[in-house]
Amino acid sequence: MAADRIEKLRAKMKEYAIDAYLVPTADFHGSEYVGDYFKCRQYLSGFTGSAGTLVVTADMAGLWTDGRYFLQAEAQLKDTGIDLYRMGDEGVPAVTEFLTERLESGQRLGFDGRTVDSATAKELKEKLEKKGAAIDPTRDLAGELWTDRPPRSAQPAALLGEEYTGKSRAQKLLEVRRAMEEKGADCFILTALDDIAWLLNIRGNDVECNPVVLSYLVVLGEKALLFAGESCFDSEMKQALSADGVHLLPYNNIYTWIRRMGARTALLDGGKVNYAILAGMPASVKVIDEANPTQLMKAVKNPVEVANIRRAHIKDGVAVTRFMYWLKTRVKAAGTEDGCAPEGQPAAGRMLTDENGQPLTELGIARKLACFREEQKHYRGPSFETIAGFGPHGAVIHYAATPETDSTLYADELLLVDSGGQYPEGTTDITRTFVLGKADEERKKYFTMVLRGHLNLAAARFLHGCRGTNLDYLCRQPLWEEGLDYNHGTGHGVGCYLNVHEGPNGFRWKIVPERRDNAVLEAGMVTSDEPGLYLEGRFGIRHENLLVCCEGEKNEYGQFMYFEPLTMAPFDLDGVDPALMSEKERALLNAYHQNVYEAIAPYLNEEERAWLARATQSIG
Amino acid sequence: MAADRIEKLRAKMKEYAIDAYLVPTADFHGSEYVGDYFKCRQYLSGFTGSAGTLVVTADMAGLWTDGRYFLQAEAQLKDTGIDLYRMGDEGVPAVTEFLTERLESGQRLGFDGRTVDSATAKELKEKLEKKGAAIDPTRDLAGELWTDRPPRSAQPAALLGEEYTGKSRAQKLLEVRRAMEEKGADCFILTALDDIAWLLNIRGNDVECNPVVLSYLVVLGEKALLFAGESCFDSEMKQALSADGVHLLPYNNIYTWIRRMGARTALLDGGKVNYAILAGMPASVKVIDEANPTQLMKAVKNPVEVANIRRAHIKDGVAVTRFMYWLKTRVKAAGTEDGCAPEGQPAAGRMLTDENGQPLTELGIARKLACFREEQKHYRGPSFETIAGFGPHGAVIHYAATPETDSTLYADELLLVDSGGQYPEGTTDITRTFVLGKADEERKKYFTMVLRGHLNLAAARFLHGCRGTNLDYLCRQPLWEEGLDYNHGTGHGVGCYLNVHEGPNGFRWKIVPERRDNAVLEAGMVTSDEPGLYLEGRFGIRHENLLVCCEGEKNEYGQFMYFEPLTMAPFDLDGVDPALMSEKERALLNAYHQNVYEAIAPYLNEEERAWLARATQSIG
Repeated sequence: MAADRIEKLRAKMKEYAIDAYLVPTADFHGSEYVGDYFKCRQYLSGFTGSAGTLVVTADMAGLWTDGRYFLQAEAQLKDTGIDLYRMGDEGVPAVTEFLTERLESGQRLGFDGRTVDSATAKELKEKLEKKGAAIDPTRDLAGELWTDRPPRSAQPAALLGEEYTGKSRAQKLLEVRRAMEEKGADCFILTALDDIAWLLNIRGNDVECNPVVLSYLVVLGEKALLFAGESCFDSEMKQALSADGVHLLPYNNIYTWIRRMGARTALLDGGKVNYAILAGMPASVKVIDEANPTQLMKAVKNPVEVANIRRAHIKDGVAVTRFMYWLKTRVKAAGTEDGCAPEGQPAAGRMLTDENGQPLTELGIARKLACFREEQKHYRGPSFETIAGFGPHGAVIHYAATPETDSTLYADELLLVDSGGQYPEGTTDITRTFVLGKADEERKKYFTMVLRGHLNLAAARFLHGCRGTNLDYLCRQPLWEEGLDYNHGTGHGVGCYLNVHEGPNGFRWKIVPERRDNAVLEAGMVTSDEPGLYLEGRFGIRHENLLVCCEGEKNEYGQFMYFEPLTMAPFDLDGVDPALMSEKERALLNAYHQNVYEAIAPYLNEEERAWLARATQSIG
Repeated sequence: MAADRIEKLRAKMKEYAIDAYLVPTADFHGSEYVGDYFKCRQYLSGFTGSAGTLVVTADMAGLWTDGRYFLQAEAQLKDTGIDLYRMGDEGVPAVTEFLTERLESGQRLGFDGRTVDSATAKELKEKLEKKGAAIDPTRDLAGELWTDRPPRSAQPAALLGEEYTGKSRAQKLLEVRRAMEEKGADCFILTALDDIAWLLNIRGNDVECNPVVLSYLVVLGEKALLFAGESCFDSEMKQALSADGVHLLPYNNIYTWIRRMGARTALLDGGKVNYAILAGMPASVKVIDEANPTQLMKAVKNPVEVANIRRAHIKDGVAVTRFMYWLKTRVKAAGTEDGCAPEGQPAAGRMLTDENGQPLTELGIARKLACFREEQKHYRGPSFETIAGFGPHGAVIHYAATPETDSTLYADELLLVDSGGQYPEGTTDITRTFVLGKADEERKKYFTMVLRGHLNLAAARFLHGCRGTNLDYLCRQPLWEEGLDYNHGTGHGVGCYLNVHEGPNGFRWKIVPERRDNAVLEAGMVTSDEPGLYLEGRFGIRHENLLVCCEGEKNEYGQFMYFEPLTMAPFDLDGVDPALMSEKERALLNAYHQNVYEAIAPYLNEEERAWLARATQSIG
């Protein structure tokens, strides 16, 4: 089927005199997750992974994807004639590099300009023009072929009240216009869906796990134009928006508006705004290419938001704590036989089962955890797909169980669960590693080591001006001292009832400029603290809380800052060896656990409460 | 006198139609310290501080300097008509800002282009041209006025043998030419004196404390041109240089050569090469403005250099240890009365004296320490002016005693001594804070706190790729946790028998791009580790060792790195409260002290050795 579609694509390419065609995995807004309407790469190639880029020429077709998907892509691309380009492997060129190398003078590279950000498209254009080649960003060839393309999502949008946002739409628009004025812009083009939702105090349901509304926004001096599906807004919403000068226009009309925008000075973020928008502007437009001012405004949560986020985390903590109690009860039911099962060969008879004697599996665990969250008031769904990895699967950093990989759980192994929820009060993201019975010495050593890093970062006291790169060492120190590491960032910014990943804050030791996640840490920013350790084929450990940055003492040296943990759920003491922790680290864990008990106990029944008291008891 | 000179300068300015004249504190090479010949700013203004910039217009004269010199500048500028611009104070414009603001359309800013780096001069030019003003970088007006100007230093230069440099001049030139080729340059213009000395394996004595030769170097494909004072080189040197294709030309001829260099592609560092050179180039020259490739090559010490540097530090450590023993003996001689003298009012009768009963003062201390260094083989002089600050003077970060400020030492206060030596084997830089008797609880608390930061940074284990900004927190952590800080970087790179301050490595938490001291830490780099704490008007504490970066384990996670301390001298245990240290920190101090004992004891007499055993004994 894919082979057939690629042939049809080649025919279209010939028709339009296009020599190479590029299909990334992207919507028109640079979103992390894309809806079904935008899955052109999947439609053409048959590869269903969440990340990948397809390139087709007259005599080759290639799919670029990363290590997470090598096995899956290999299987799905079999007999399609599409070659797999393993990103990160030695000698495998980047897509841009490949295209620049491949296209000859006089040839043309086609793509749908709406699916490529301006910065990348401009880079391609410049590199190709140097060779005498050109780009044609005007054709959605997949769209032309895709007859049964699903409709674009157009879920109902809703207003988010000031009791949640802490700031009115009018006030936010005022501050954005002030930022525009400072930069000399009379027009601000915003296409990042979470920034639009934040600015307008609206939420929707157009992207899985992200409560956003498919839309473009143009902020002008007096009014703002919201290009979105009209059917998503009821009359109350329209009125509320209109009262603040926000006028609704059809989603696709942004492109006509852009062409007729005249002689304006437009502020936009070229790393986010798609190239069709940039290329559609008349020459009379002056572009100021800078980070969206909304990004920092959104990241710095106001006091109302912070108070709400704390509430969201207590609800989420109650769900996770009750889940943990349930899980520990299932472990107990599986028997108390001592000793760790041999590597990869779980002791028969010590399989974990549910109350009906059915085996517990990774997918079942994810469903069970969802049930506990669903009991919480205002729960709106997961903030990302739950990662529940048993034993070796815990070592696969982006693991998500499928029916084919779904592992049954056995006692005395580790289970890593990374999950989060959306509540109108805020977005959560928590990882706990559970010991399903007894942990051997090695597992305890590593469990404790990763926890020490987590606790030390959370306890940082620092001067205002510090960035994630200044503090990341704290988290890696226990591992680095033993010649160990984890191959991912230590933390990312988290939205408030918005995307679980947002900038510009983060914890990372190497600066990656294009990630823009190394901003100065400001009071009100929410960042995850999630070190891990992954032993391939064996087990994985990760401990994650969200931290809110707070202002401490201000004195002659400057403004001191610190973090408070938002996440409220026990770390599994069955994995902790107090002897491997410093006195200070033990005190940090005890203080956190005391907070957890105080926050969560009131919402538990007597039995659960008694268990929580033990699960959060003071160690060492 | 200054007033008179400023008037004469104004007359010259009028003659050349110059409306504002700029005199920085600089030689023609961007050196940190400048020789007498280059002290034009001092000649014109009468202000003798080591840092400052003079600006003169028809109706104003102003001197910009920093906090170290406010008092001195105020006194020295009295009745000169020159206003003091206190840099860093609120509302005080930067010099560039002031000039850009001040000059009107049609006006001209004059300066000696040899004394301003290309990047700064270009910035000035662009900003002024926007206003319709211009620069004239061709006039050394101070030189025209300065009739009794001292001659340019022209001290004898000497070859440094491969037993010290570990790499031949020919090999270094080969590597530089390889770097030029990679960048597509057929010409490399090097004016940084330490880089020239390193590349040619020569040393001189033209800048105080820095064993460099006043010179410019142009590296071409086959040969290299060294523009320097011919009298500095004996025939053996000339032959050795010539054998490697390095030809000697008169110092000032660089400017004629530049004008006639034709159509070359020149690699140069615009932040270091002076503007007269850049502006003198014909339009046919293509400039590649990048960091000098020699900077990183010089910073990464080779194994021969590292072995030598260790030797230099043992010699230096013997001198400092013997000095410390002598000092502690003088404290003992002052009596053993208990208790700390009241703040600022040292107990009479407990003054420290030398063996002849003469009072010990800060200047005397510096002389005494120099005597101990002079006993060491091959000692070539200080690597910078010794800072010996007693009590409140210890809190003045860049303090250097003068006969006017010279404090007498009394018991039970702290004495901060920051000093270093030049040896053909290497350059040293060490700070110790000495307790002159008994330290009270507060002093011990802070002394120990700063030491903990020092030890923790020195003990860092990290993945290759880390920079100073990733590790700086380790050193500040004990202070930041208590709401304290020090207002300087934690560490700087150190040359090998070269400048005590060099790039591109350093420890710092805020990135300051123009400092270029945040390079990836490579094996062989030498960096100081010198946290401090300064209580204004009371006392100062600083603990400094030099660290060499080393390669540790290499595994699936990458190349791990660590530091080894080069400096070998005890930290004063009279200031240490073991109860305030973690077990790990006590172990770090004990391990270091054991190393010190083993390295230094063999060079001491019996009495000194017995004392060192106590001074380095295990604590806690």
